[in-house]
Amino acid sequence: MDKLNHYRDCLQSVLEEHYRLSRSALRPKGDEVEPQLIVDREHDHYQLLRVGWRDNTEPIFGCPIHASIKNGKIWIERDQTEYGVANELMDRGIPKEDIVLAFHAPYKRPYTGFAVA
Amino acid sequence: MDKLNHYRDCLQSVLEEHYRLSRSALRPKGDEVEPQLIVDREHDHYQLLRVGWRDNTEPIFGCPIHASIKNGKIWIERDQTEYGVANELMDRGIPKEDIVLAFHAPYKRPYTGFAVA
Repeated sequence: MDKLNHYRDCLQSVLEEHYRLSRSALRPKGDEVEPQLIVDREHDHYQLLRVGWRDNTEPIFGCPIHASIKNGKIWIERDQTEYGVANELMDRGIPKEDIVLAFHAPYKRPYTGFAVA
Repeated sequence: MDKLNHYRDCLQSVLEEHYRLSRSALRPKGDEVEPQLIVDREHDHYQLLRVGWRDNTEPIFGCPIHASIKNGKIWIERDQTEYGVANELMDRGIPKEDIVLAFHAPYKRPYTGFAVA
């Protein structure tokens, strides 16, 4: 279980970093869009969300990052970052074999070099 | 703080019920879409998510329910349920004054009968 807790810590720290960045980013005045950091270590879901209203009229509900831990592996379901959550996780020592690029269709995953499931 | 923990319990139980329903719903074969229950009582975000691939080719990433607790009130940011999360919360005894229908634009909220912020 130590491996799992390490994976949880890694995911959380990746998300916290992006959360800090999105909080400090310049935002137009009157922009009520709020970044949210969501960490559920019990059900093993990890998410960065942007929620709110732009200019009081345009609803914003966007999820730049979503990942889960399933069967000992990290499933990246959504990743809109430039460098890539998978790269950030590998920088923290997590092997490719324990990362699933779930934002790719199942039939494509064997060609990603990452875990299939 | 007791009130807040009660609100957290209420939100969690509403979500758990919908999660159970979506897990037991009939799903077409080969449908790899998974409902996820996300409960983060530390940052106070609560979500129901549907993630996966339909027929191996169509990506599914949908959020039927998302709510947060901010300044002692429950902000319903997203609600695709028929009966309404707000109604479910009121059935559990939570007063309108502590519920924000945040899926309505800020300028509309004074006319909802619920809290404005």
